[in-house]
Amino acid sequence: MKRGVAFGSAAMVAALLCLALPCLAAGDPLPSWRDGAAKQAIVSFVDKVSRKGGPDFVPPAQRIATFDNDGTLWAEQPMYFQLFFTLDRLKQMAPSHPEWKDNPTVQAALSGDPARLAKLGKKGLLELVGLTHSGLTAQQMQELARAWLKTARNPQRKMLFIKMVYQPMLELLAYLRAHGFKTFIVSGGGVDFIRAFSQKVYGIPPEQVIGSSLKAKFELTGGKPEVVKLPQVNSIDDGDGKPVNIELHIGQRPIMAVGNSDGDLAMLQWTAAGTGPSLMMLVHHDDAAREFAYDRKSHVGRLDKALDQARRDGWTVVSMKSDFARVFPSSKK
Amino acid sequence: MKRGVAFGSAAMVAALLCLALPCLAAGDPLPSWRDGAAKQAIVSFVDKVSRKGGPDFVPPAQRIATFDNDGTLWAEQPMYFQLFFTLDRLKQMAPSHPEWKDNPTVQAALSGDPARLAKLGKKGLLELVGLTHSGLTAQQMQELARAWLKTARNPQRKMLFIKMVYQPMLELLAYLRAHGFKTFIVSGGGVDFIRAFSQKVYGIPPEQVIGSSLKAKFELTGGKPEVVKLPQVNSIDDGDGKPVNIELHIGQRPIMAVGNSDGDLAMLQWTAAGTGPSLMMLVHHDDAAREFAYDRKSHVGRLDKALDQARRDGWTVVSMKSDFARVFPSSKK
Repeated sequence: MKRGVAFGSAAMVAALLCLALPCLAAGDPLPSWRDGAAKQAIVSFVDKVSRKGGPDFVPPAQRIATFDNDGTLWAEQPMYFQLFFTLDRLKQMAPSHPEWKDNPTVQAALSGDPARLAKLGKKGLLELVGLTHSGLTAQQMQELARAWLKTARNPQRKMLFIKMVYQPMLELLAYLRAHGFKTFIVSGGGVDFIRAFSQKVYGIPPEQVIGSSLKAKFELTGGKPEVVKLPQVNSIDDGDGKPVNIELHIGQRPIMAVGNSDGDLAMLQWTAAGTGPSLMMLVHHDDAAREFAYDRKSHVGRLDKALDQARRDGWTVVSMKSDFARVFPSSKK
Repeated sequence: MKRGVAFGSAAMVAALLCLALPCLAAGDPLPSWRDGAAKQAIVSFVDKVSRKGGPDFVPPAQRIATFDNDGTLWAEQPMYFQLFFTLDRLKQMAPSHPEWKDNPTVQAALSGDPARLAKLGKKGLLELVGLTHSGLTAQQMQELARAWLKTARNPQRKMLFIKMVYQPMLELLAYLRAHGFKTFIVSGGGVDFIRAFSQKVYGIPPEQVIGSSLKAKFELTGGKPEVVKLPQVNSIDDGDGKPVNIELHIGQRPIMAVGNSDGDLAMLQWTAAGTGPSLMMLVHHDDAAREFAYDRKSHVGRLDKALDQARRDGWTVVSMKSDFARVFPSSKK
């Protein structure tokens, strides 16, 4: 009896709280987010835009949320994971490509020097992707990536790269979709690499992945019509390229944008400038114990100007240390 | 009583038919398609790919159907409707652009000579779009297009352009979506022009419209972050460009593709070369009385090589004259 009464009281308190606040009490859909300003900002925003008849209601067709990938949905240290993949392929292919000896990007990549590698940036990465994947179809690139992801591990954390996705972000993506949002990835990384795992890992289908890309051509390969990659860059989906590509691919301004670096600043600025309600979020990597700690001085995922603007304009800065109860799906809470 | 019995018998016959054939009897979802090979091909295809446990089942995530727009979803004679829109804007703007006097594309456009106009093609059209829309946002372009579409009429048919969509195609789009398909437009026309009406008219949201596009840049217009169009062509989404852009935007090969001209041939070839079941359709404009009749010799929407391949490979050729019970939503049946 006593237990029954206590339970009854707790439920009543929860019910009363639910009347006053967005209801987090029962069946929290964001269990890996600690209670705090970031979680509160998410729940309040989703609640107000999906409350029919409310002053901030946004029709589902306009509930577009865009997420950066590297450093936002999964880790990106000590360098972009796709760069490890591309280096492995570069090393395999190098013996049969003596002409690469004169290519400074290839030489920097093969040097193994972390400083030179980090400086390659997204443009250098895409050049290497072009060299190592031209002549392949997107399907073939994805098969190579999926095979690699099965066994490849992060040299610092010793974890499989594919397991280094952020559990709170997986919950956030699912929470948004459950509230009528359409979730997109808008990444500086290569679009085909991300599509190799986006559906399985993030629940995001290939047509909702925007990324950097190579040019391609339609051709009859042995009589079979195929679209094959060319070694030239088509688009670098970073910085100003993000809003430009969002307009090209999605055709409307997001109402929510999440990133972690200065490469996401233009996307967040453009989102903030919409006429209706909007939520801009930056993941701040401040947890050396559980993940990595870096911001203004990092070559990979530098967060400097965007952090200043976030603080000035009241955007939501997510502290991995304080806001994430759990970092990776396999982490203990 | 007699009526009751008769109804009972008819219902029983319908039910028996439904066991043997894809059920068309009750509540036909394609009432503007006459019974015939084209309708049968559509219904059989949709039935087999959506029959769970069947040998040709395709999971919903892979049920991608791509549609050309001009000549496939709406009419395109005597020239692309977007060209009429662009000409109207060109004429408005010409007095304040004396430098256009030396531009051969502009002069051909302003000549009013149908032969010269028809020869502009999709590339010429896109050049004119660039001249008349650079500096604008996609939103502003769409507002101009929507305002124009409210009153602009086809000079030959005297109908509002926006009413010249094909009723059988509206039914086909809805029928596919009701069976788990994701419907995309893949058009040689300008992506922003089509997005001005695609949701309202076709039920296709902006992120499922792929088209020709201008380059764009992110800038602070009067302090407000905007993505504005540049006068340079980014992509011509025609011919070989269609499969290339489908790969870039959708990231998977369609299982169904519908077009009406040689500009759609590569898209249909690529679709046909998939490993699973696929349906390739061409709309053949052979109805001068109710719409227009043209194919191998037309400057706009030339259907020549694609018609040959369709006949050779057994693709579905839709005769507007024989297969469409109704052409436009306002037509009598």
